[in-house]
Amino acid sequence: MSAVRRSYTRPLDIKRGRVDLSHGSGGRATAQLVEELFIRHLDNPWLRGHDDSACFEPPPGRLVMTTDSHVVTPLFFPGGDIGCLAVNGTINDVAMAGATPLYLAAGFILEEGFPLSELERIVASMAQAATIAKVPVIAGDTKVVEHGKGDGLYLTTTGVGVVPEGVEIGGARARVGDVAIVSGDVGDHGVAILAQREHLQFESEIRSDTAALHELVAVMLAACPDIRCLRDPTRGGLATTLNEIAQQSGVGMLLQESAIPVASMVSAACEFLGLDPLYSANEGKLVAVCPAGDAAQLLEAMRAHPLGAHAAEIGACIADDNHFVQMQTRLGGRRVVDWLSGEQLPRIC
Amino acid sequence: MSAVRRSYTRPLDIKRGRVDLSHGSGGRATAQLVEELFIRHLDNPWLRGHDDSACFEPPPGRLVMTTDSHVVTPLFFPGGDIGCLAVNGTINDVAMAGATPLYLAAGFILEEGFPLSELERIVASMAQAATIAKVPVIAGDTKVVEHGKGDGLYLTTTGVGVVPEGVEIGGARARVGDVAIVSGDVGDHGVAILAQREHLQFESEIRSDTAALHELVAVMLAACPDIRCLRDPTRGGLATTLNEIAQQSGVGMLLQESAIPVASMVSAACEFLGLDPLYSANEGKLVAVCPAGDAAQLLEAMRAHPLGAHAAEIGACIADDNHFVQMQTRLGGRRVVDWLSGEQLPRIC
Repeated sequence: MSAVRRSYTRPLDIKRGRVDLSHGSGGRATAQLVEELFIRHLDNPWLRGHDDSACFEPPPGRLVMTTDSHVVTPLFFPGGDIGCLAVNGTINDVAMAGATPLYLAAGFILEEGFPLSELERIVASMAQAATIAKVPVIAGDTKVVEHGKGDGLYLTTTGVGVVPEGVEIGGARARVGDVAIVSGDVGDHGVAILAQREHLQFESEIRSDTAALHELVAVMLAACPDIRCLRDPTRGGLATTLNEIAQQSGVGMLLQESAIPVASMVSAACEFLGLDPLYSANEGKLVAVCPAGDAAQLLEAMRAHPLGAHAAEIGACIADDNHFVQMQTRLGGRRVVDWLSGEQLPRIC
Repeated sequence: MSAVRRSYTRPLDIKRGRVDLSHGSGGRATAQLVEELFIRHLDNPWLRGHDDSACFEPPPGRLVMTTDSHVVTPLFFPGGDIGCLAVNGTINDVAMAGATPLYLAAGFILEEGFPLSELERIVASMAQAATIAKVPVIAGDTKVVEHGKGDGLYLTTTGVGVVPEGVEIGGARARVGDVAIVSGDVGDHGVAILAQREHLQFESEIRSDTAALHELVAVMLAACPDIRCLRDPTRGGLATTLNEIAQQSGVGMLLQESAIPVASMVSAACEFLGLDPLYSANEGKLVAVCPAGDAAQLLEAMRAHPLGAHAAEIGACIADDNHFVQMQTRLGGRRVVDWLSGEQLPRIC
């Protein structure tokens, strides 16, 4: 965001104005949009510096970097919007390396004609999420594409963080005998988006679980420094995430269906919609794998945190050359929980 | 890119296949695309790790972070494509802070129906640019939007780099009496894109100047550690970049029109197209501001590097409370070189 303060003839008309191609030109209109909308909400010393990059002194330790493009539709949904979703999602990807998130960058692709009032709502939501998480957005970029070449707004966020000394977390570190824990009810985000898209009304509103999990992770690492794997089951849901870990670690998994927490509203909605909550996206949940002996202590610490109140042990890693994820069903049978095939819900995040 | 190796029933048909929504699902199809296309070309230990974030040990020093979304159309143009453009452009934004680029992340937004063969060409071009620059792409993400909600491919790249001890570069550091230097002929990229878009034929092909400038910057800093400002004049061109620096530093500038290098083909094309090369985008050029006493030495060092062969001193910083950029024209007059207003060329990068 290199554009700098000028005196403009008129302030940006955020209430009635719309994005036009000049806002992506890099010239005067871009400068005004950056100044009067982006910096006004995301204000911090880095953005105020108006350089093309942002400079910071990293704390000691290994750094992690992660990026995610967001194309969720609709842009606004019960429980959040693309702005807070992007901030929380990128913070979570950093946190899943056991790292403390430090800074974010944001790249906007706007469609010509997009209302400036909606852009402001989204940027304000990003700013609020960044403030709550204490992870500032220090660099950004805005491009504009012609009407019909986008879908309102796409948002790519990138995060960097620092891994505390002694923490070693990775998808390949699960061992036979370890247990798998999920931090709460699964499937909320995917069902909330689909319900909104299809204009479905349930008894009470199903809301996205979008939330930043780095403080929960810090609590978990304090309670159990030997956590092997952490991952947030977003696209593809819990089933896909567990398959990824099984594959990377070279183990099988055996889950207990009755132990997997699903909110009753989400369970009912899934039945109605023909969805499986195990494949429905989450945006404020995590899966942890830890040594069996640490599980009780870890669960206790998680349940004491608001974002881990419904944490549950859902299964264990077993020896299996095929690296299958299997599930003991409520009826006593066993079935393979495969990867997501095809596309259950496009543009869920 | 958390997807992991599986045995797929059939390999990806890159020659005839197209992107479909399942490639953005986060499930099996995403994993196959990541494995057989992205990792095959961008291969490095970070991507092979298959975690959602990439970990590295930063060298000592301040870090910089920068992000840019790329929406250039057409995706392929004389001298490059969106893939190498994104890699080089992000490296350049890092380098303009005087920093050594370390790592890149890439977020892809693909349109349903986009040919996998074109995606492969673009990823291979990114990989080649990253290899030449010695700056690996260590994290990535892929999303897919429905046909008609994108334009083939959008690409957001983020870079981190480290600023060597003692280097202090910023757009606000120009002082009255300093001189402005440009590293070579201006306007090439913008004219190359427009010519391609309009199917114009000139005597010889006008090619984008896309190139990574970090090695030129290293040579420049060795010759002149007191460089005040560095910036790459991309969108908005040389005129907008100089206005940004004048505004940030609180100085005026006086340019000599006759000193600004423009290739004769580009000059002729601009006249024909009604463009001004001062507002036409560059993707392999930089502007430097340095103390007047260092200019000769800096120019000599720049001209010894292939990417600075046509480097020229183009003007000086002067006292001006309005922070205007003025130009002494070839005819002896003086005119204000204003910011770019409106949009000269949409989707130039």
